[in-house]
Amino acid sequence: MDRIRVTYVLTTANREDAHAKARDIGFEQTVELPPGTLPPGLEERIVGTVETVRDAGEEGRFEAVLSYDPIAVGDDLPQLLNLLYGNISLMSGIRLTGLELPPAVLGRLPGPRFGIEGVRRLCACDDERPLLCAAAKPVGLSAVELARLCHTLATSGIDLVKDDHGLANQASAPFDERVKQCQDAVERANARTGGHTLYVPNVTGSVDTLRDRLELVRSIGCRAVLLAPLLIGLDTVRWIAEGTVLSVFAHPALTGAYFHPHHGITPDVLLGTVFRAIGSDGVIYPNAGGRFPLTRRTCEAINRRLRAPLGGMRAAFPVPGGGVDAARVPYWTEQYGPDTVFLVGASLYAEPDLEQAARRLVESVRTVWA
Amino acid sequence: MDRIRVTYVLTTANREDAHAKARDIGFEQTVELPPGTLPPGLEERIVGTVETVRDAGEEGRFEAVLSYDPIAVGDDLPQLLNLLYGNISLMSGIRLTGLELPPAVLGRLPGPRFGIEGVRRLCACDDERPLLCAAAKPVGLSAVELARLCHTLATSGIDLVKDDHGLANQASAPFDERVKQCQDAVERANARTGGHTLYVPNVTGSVDTLRDRLELVRSIGCRAVLLAPLLIGLDTVRWIAEGTVLSVFAHPALTGAYFHPHHGITPDVLLGTVFRAIGSDGVIYPNAGGRFPLTRRTCEAINRRLRAPLGGMRAAFPVPGGGVDAARVPYWTEQYGPDTVFLVGASLYAEPDLEQAARRLVESVRTVWA
Repeated sequence: MDRIRVTYVLTTANREDAHAKARDIGFEQTVELPPGTLPPGLEERIVGTVETVRDAGEEGRFEAVLSYDPIAVGDDLPQLLNLLYGNISLMSGIRLTGLELPPAVLGRLPGPRFGIEGVRRLCACDDERPLLCAAAKPVGLSAVELARLCHTLATSGIDLVKDDHGLANQASAPFDERVKQCQDAVERANARTGGHTLYVPNVTGSVDTLRDRLELVRSIGCRAVLLAPLLIGLDTVRWIAEGTVLSVFAHPALTGAYFHPHHGITPDVLLGTVFRAIGSDGVIYPNAGGRFPLTRRTCEAINRRLRAPLGGMRAAFPVPGGGVDAARVPYWTEQYGPDTVFLVGASLYAEPDLEQAARRLVESVRTVWA
Repeated sequence: MDRIRVTYVLTTANREDAHAKARDIGFEQTVELPPGTLPPGLEERIVGTVETVRDAGEEGRFEAVLSYDPIAVGDDLPQLLNLLYGNISLMSGIRLTGLELPPAVLGRLPGPRFGIEGVRRLCACDDERPLLCAAAKPVGLSAVELARLCHTLATSGIDLVKDDHGLANQASAPFDERVKQCQDAVERANARTGGHTLYVPNVTGSVDTLRDRLELVRSIGCRAVLLAPLLIGLDTVRWIAEGTVLSVFAHPALTGAYFHPHHGITPDVLLGTVFRAIGSDGVIYPNAGGRFPLTRRTCEAINRRLRAPLGGMRAAFPVPGGGVDAARVPYWTEQYGPDTVFLVGASLYAEPDLEQAARRLVESVRTVWA
């Protein structure tokens, strides 16, 4: 395969309209001109080709596959995003549901630097078991208070302790102070327990401060960071993933705007394929059964795309979170399998004793996967 | 006003549910913990306050206003975006319809460097009339061919000649060669006609190449650039607007994912307030009556937000485009008024003689605004 193949589900009156709409997409996403106004030869070279149009198994919905020559993209991620959904985002009844990228495009994207196996090594986890992640929260606490929570969670044996993604550079806990205190707290806990908990600071901020912040977290010994691609920019994450030795965990803030049933980009394509291709070793998403409306089927589709072959790229960890109840984690680990990181936040904080609650969670999962 | 005020239209069964949902938003967007699990004092300091909940004039829809202390944001744009819509994007029935930013937040955003008056000066347009913009297109042409189109359009008296936003760094017209050829072509046309057409190159690419590309376009004499905030990152645009002497025109690629009727962010808030605040002197949007489904009312709301008082920020140009028929432009100029840039693309290229078609467009608008 040497072309970019994109699948859209189109909402139209009938198959004929679907075909016309698919053809329009091929023009809109490249030349932005209607058929018949192009200089000779250009349509064949650059306009998207409608490969197939078929029933999508639902009244008034049709699945169209378009293909593009990678020359339409050039060499950067922003233009790839533009080709896939730029202008047609402004139309209606067009949902991007599938994406296959040829080596010419994948080769310009970093993919996960660590991947599932690499993150396991960072956590010194030799067993085939799911990993556990918990969050230091909430925003408003001081750096010292957040560090204390990190210490507590690390002591309990949680594999990854991350910042809440809303922890930026607020006066209550300025970035530099927060990451230093929290990393130190996790290291102290590890030294005491002999564990290998990884602190994952949320690195956000303006484009011009990110470089210094990344350098700081690296210099104090952090091995992984949390980044929100739609907040700091997808290509900014690509740039970070390519340029640092840190493992990247991606947060889905703002992505939900794309997840409409009839128009947008499916969660598995955006969080599974795109977030992985730009360099995420783990991708957080709101699990079914929590406080967000993603279905279990959608979650399983995300898991598949994160782990499936993708050029030569490493597999990435699905990180279901978003209101996962600690008591239900053993159940979900059996559903999603060992190559998963489970993120538990609020439900631990609802318990009277955070350390006890976290320890129970750790033990309940170890028991299932012993 | 010293708080951030955000208006959401919520889809719920009744007003009581709307109130509960609004309260949940205030927690979700800050502490990500449910009520009752917070350390003392934190709720008052950091959680969003529900100011009002009222009927939105439609069955099952309620308008809620929440306010936040700016300390929840800290000092950067990504965290502001996160506060406004990060996690709740992943829920449903929540549409951000209004936004008021206090001086503490606006003061950290650049706003337009040129604004409407500044862009008029760049185009040497002293008259109170709308400006006209046309695009060199399509992708797939060589730099020489694109430059020839720029020359033709500049010769006809179009005020701004922009690149199609899909022109990135494709092999058919590599970035450096394209912008040099096109700028040169527009300068030659200006020298011949005595005109002041501005060439507006599309500057896209990876975060690490943008700096060089901006430096290049500046060094060859360009005074304005086209940027697509959702493709290269909103904060990347903020950073460019703050750091360069170039005027910024923003393209709406990818924004449509936010424009759902019951969930997302309204076009006027995203394109009007946010795009302006990050530094756009002009904001392109698909006009009503073209090939995109925005209504006229929506377009007028965008126009209002771009021109209305916003802290001490300059007003920005609305740039309606997206399939505006050249023959209809005089009509639209009377509707939208002189402080508008009209972008005409495909309909000029459908004519047998591009220069004649562009000249007729220029004359038809000058006649209305003589």
